[in-house]
Amino acid sequence: MDENELINNLSKALGIEYEKLSKHIGRSIRLMKYGELNYAVLRRDLLGYREGTTILLGDEPLIVHGYPSIQRLAFIEGVSKHMIDNVVVEEKMNGYNVRIVYYMGNIYAITRGGYICPYTTARIRKLYFKNIKLAHQEYPDIVLVGEVVGTENPYVVYDYPEARGFDYFIFDTMKKDKLQPLKIRDEIAEKYSLKAVRVLDIIDKKDIDGLKSIIDRLEKERREGVVLKDPYHRVPPLKYTTIYINIRDIWEGMRHPFDEGRGYLFSRIVRLIAQGYEYDWNNAELDRIALKLGRAILEPAINSLRKRANGEIIASKYTLVFPSEDDLSKYIEYAESIGMDFIFRVVEKREDGCIVVELFKMKETHNIYTKMLKTGYSPLD
Amino acid sequence: MDENELINNLSKALGIEYEKLSKHIGRSIRLMKYGELNYAVLRRDLLGYREGTTILLGDEPLIVHGYPSIQRLAFIEGVSKHMIDNVVVEEKMNGYNVRIVYYMGNIYAITRGGYICPYTTARIRKLYFKNIKLAHQEYPDIVLVGEVVGTENPYVVYDYPEARGFDYFIFDTMKKDKLQPLKIRDEIAEKYSLKAVRVLDIIDKKDIDGLKSIIDRLEKERREGVVLKDPYHRVPPLKYTTIYINIRDIWEGMRHPFDEGRGYLFSRIVRLIAQGYEYDWNNAELDRIALKLGRAILEPAINSLRKRANGEIIASKYTLVFPSEDDLSKYIEYAESIGMDFIFRVVEKREDGCIVVELFKMKETHNIYTKMLKTGYSPLD
Repeated sequence: MDENELINNLSKALGIEYEKLSKHIGRSIRLMKYGELNYAVLRRDLLGYREGTTILLGDEPLIVHGYPSIQRLAFIEGVSKHMIDNVVVEEKMNGYNVRIVYYMGNIYAITRGGYICPYTTARIRKLYFKNIKLAHQEYPDIVLVGEVVGTENPYVVYDYPEARGFDYFIFDTMKKDKLQPLKIRDEIAEKYSLKAVRVLDIIDKKDIDGLKSIIDRLEKERREGVVLKDPYHRVPPLKYTTIYINIRDIWEGMRHPFDEGRGYLFSRIVRLIAQGYEYDWNNAELDRIALKLGRAILEPAINSLRKRANGEIIASKYTLVFPSEDDLSKYIEYAESIGMDFIFRVVEKREDGCIVVELFKMKETHNIYTKMLKTGYSPLD
Repeated sequence: MDENELINNLSKALGIEYEKLSKHIGRSIRLMKYGELNYAVLRRDLLGYREGTTILLGDEPLIVHGYPSIQRLAFIEGVSKHMIDNVVVEEKMNGYNVRIVYYMGNIYAITRGGYICPYTTARIRKLYFKNIKLAHQEYPDIVLVGEVVGTENPYVVYDYPEARGFDYFIFDTMKKDKLQPLKIRDEIAEKYSLKAVRVLDIIDKKDIDGLKSIIDRLEKERREGVVLKDPYHRVPPLKYTTIYINIRDIWEGMRHPFDEGRGYLFSRIVRLIAQGYEYDWNNAELDRIALKLGRAILEPAINSLRKRANGEIIASKYTLVFPSEDDLSKYIEYAESIGMDFIFRVVEKREDGCIVVELFKMKETHNIYTKMLKTGYSPLD
């Protein structure tokens, strides 16, 4: 299919004129290919569709709507202003958001941004192909939304005892662009042996103390936080994260201060400011958090600078386990097509055919540190 | 004079065609007025002139070139790569950069950005009119560049024992767009009783230990840092600031996290990262700095949020002492013309005619905190 035909099909699928669409192609709308399947990605809210919406351009095009962004709470007590009556308190897991669709006889895993990730697709197919296929037969117009977590993925590496190296936890279902009542998700997970995120409690919206004690427990268990939902999604969900993860994000990010670090810093600090106010930290508590925050900012960044001075490469490392050679080559092709700057090496070929790969994403911090060390100049005023 | 005439005069003064200039008017070039004096400000590097260049549009137009931005050192030892032989180590004072010109029988104080500041002009005239007038007679084509420091100004409030509430310390002289040898500055300061910044030492560029011990002394004395200069400005100057001031800047800025805070944070942290590496902090030192950094980030921001929750206004407060009513009204007119959001109140009229004013610059943090407290929502994801 040539580009004109693709845009024509996209135009019909979205109900938007060719001329209106075509000017966005290559910019806000990206045409992609996964194997033989052409698809389009909306890279921002556009023409009435959400950012991250994917249009699968097979014989019968399918629109997979973007998952809505979730409002963050600054203060826990804000929940009572927003919700209607009951609030489902779910664990927010630290991974990456993936929509799963069954389309033309196969399963596709779509990232938050709207791309079919060949790695995630391969791992999900291997783990849950039958379950998802059967679920699709009973719920043909439902898209599953969940979190991929664990240590074997190219996005967020975080060890969960309840996940293997790679696992998938459903947290919502969508019909077209609408989030569905939570019982649909629970039914599907139950019937088809899919994992779902933990429901920690169902509380009254005024039970702030109850919610705080749940979050205090998550702090101690070093968990990310909660998503708060109306059981029927009559109002949009809310999210709230622990002090622990806010500081840990900074620590992770500041290993590469000119990449993730710069972006994470201010947002996480704003969260801590709100927490310090709501929890009314005394001087000792402020000292305790301040020390952790300060170390999370400085230590990883100084360590990386030391490493660079010793000639090491500054990159983020991921361990990936591909079910087959074909999955690996599909992923490499994908990574190149989205302009990722990376190197990789195969570290193991297992008897079952799996290929273990170390992937290194190159960081701008590498280049900036190199220049600093060479010239002695600061990269900023 | 109408705008066309002004642009014509500007065109002649800069040697740039009318058409080329006129498209920048109101954007990169701003036409301003101080009393009866028209002037133009270059708001960025433009057409071969530096950002902050001011063109005074009296009968004989005068170009006051922008002061060049100074390269910051990440590492103290970088000085030996940059300099030629001798290095003049001067104290960098924590105030604001002001160029002073004598023009058509009067003195004008021009900020780094290129604006004639009516307040600074009034105070400088009162303190140093005769000195500068006489200096101008001997050095007619010299522009003085220095730092206004102290507690009585609308920009940077910092108490120096050697400054009164308001004082001016020369650190350079310029002829057209060129920095002049430091001895010119010293001659002028000496002959005309003007203050100059402290020369802390003159060292060989390889004497890193000597430079470090100067900076260590400044750390203990809670001073801002140093500017390192070739005595003849054969190579551009360098700057380096203390750990003390880097953290203090964050503290000051984070009283208004969505205003200065956001902008200061990352740049100051990068400076600390370089310092941690160069000084090879051990674990105890890292703890000590990390705690200070963490508190500088959290404490002022949480305090401001508490204040807002208690109904207080979040604004930055300045105390200004105007020599006359006319100076005050000129300043108010100026503040309005540059779109400053402020309120002020007269707190004292002194016997000598001076008017003491409290100026409050309104902060975006006020609005964002208000909304956070009302909705419970985070302003960022």
